[in-house]
Amino acid sequence: MSVAERLIQLGIQLPQLPAPAFNYVSARQYGSFVFSSGHTPTVNGELTVRGKLGADVSLQQGQEAARLCVLNCLAAVAGVIGDLDRVESVLKLTGYVASAPGFVDQPAVINGASALIEEILGEHGRHARTALGLAELPGGAPVEVDLVLALR
Amino acid sequence: MSVAERLIQLGIQLPQLPAPAFNYVSARQYGSFVFSSGHTPTVNGELTVRGKLGADVSLQQGQEAARLCVLNCLAAVAGVIGDLDRVESVLKLTGYVASAPGFVDQPAVINGASALIEEILGEHGRHARTALGLAELPGGAPVEVDLVLALR
Amino acid sequence: MSVAERLIQLGIQLPQLPAPAFNYVSARQYGSFVFSSGHTPTVNGELTVRGKLGADVSLQQGQEAARLCVLNCLAAVAGVIGDLDRVESVLKLTGYVASAPGFVDQPAVINGASALIEEILGEHGRHARTALGLAELPGGAPVEVDLVLALR
Repeated sequence: MSVAERLIQLGIQLPQLPAPAFNYVSARQYGSFVFSSGHTPTVNGELTVRGKLGADVSLQQGQEAARLCVLNCLAAVAGVIGDLDRVESVLKLTGYVASAPGFVDQPAVINGASALIEEILGEHGRHARTALGLAELPGGAPVEVDLVLALR
Repeated sequence: MSVAERLIQLGIQLPQLPAPAFNYVSARQYGSFVFSSGHTPTVNGELTVRGKLGADVSLQQGQEAARLCVLNCLAAVAGVIGDLDRVESVLKLTGYVASAPGFVDQPAVINGASALIEEILGEHGRHARTALGLAELPGGAPVEVDLVLALR
Repeated sequence: MSVAERLIQLGIQLPQLPAPAFNYVSARQYGSFVFSSGHTPTVNGELTVRGKLGADVSLQQGQEAARLCVLNCLAAVAGVIGDLDRVESVLKLTGYVASAPGFVDQPAVINGASALIEEILGEHGRHARTALGLAELPGGAPVEVDLVLALR
């Protein structure tokens, strides 16, 4: 099954990303490698949720935010490589979680991201990952994700 | 001297890592490159120390934790490539230190990681590195490390 | 125009970096890829500014600090590859901003870094990027930057 077919099956449409707000790019390809920018849970450039895990944002909200981050990352990658079927491997996912003091369940939040990647890319989505608790994230985002991918 | 011989000389045994707790992997190879997941100072999946530098965890404890993170990273890499003699170069080590307000000696903590890498891999272990002070880390870990490596 | 000519036109001289304080390196090359270490806003190894955005350090100071981080990163890369004209692409810039509670304008700080990269490297400097709010950075630095680059 192609990624496009899987997205339809999942009822997911990759978003159209607005251009970055400054002179950087949403993702950058070199040869077989693609690095995505860090993406936050935005829709049409607006955050859908703000705040920190362990304070204002629930675990479930955080997981949903993490899914949205991944969707934006994959949209950015698709914008550069055209077709997500070209992804051989997601080498690395780094998940950044805005964390109130004492919140240490970053992995559970980022599981939302890891799960969606596998839903969309299957075996090709199996990634190494790092989950971290940040003091603050851009615009008050609760989660940010970036990816390193390899193409076939 | 092979890495295996050096490990024996150092009295170090690479641990057997439990499988990750979710659908990601401990390290991911693509061609000549390997990305490790972020690893915390666990033994048999349990953290050996919890807390923050500058509060609950001493510099020496932090350095020991950083060594354990590296050991887990290298075990993860060995699990993927089989033999650490295949490592041509540790390209990048990123060291994440859970930091209480005002603790700014992240480099001294991460020196524990850098030192062990060189003990084990010699010249092939010479790496670029970034040391950072995080608000929180998974499970209350004081340190987390991830690696990017190149194979010969 | 060569990078050297552009630097002269900009009135910028790449600094001579002191050796790292421990057994890591300022940047590491493998084939077509270069990973820089994280660099803070130092001149001759001394931070020019300390503190956090949102508390002790203004946005403008933060942007100037971010420029200095980039200058140090590029000096490190030049020290490894010899000639910045060999840079085909800055694949990834990660910008770490020491952030007081409630400071969420990390992207504006890191724009200082992104702008300088484009001034110096032109189109070859177009990068994916991640901007993050850290609890603390080494030595009390307000900003730290690292790069992944590809060579032609």
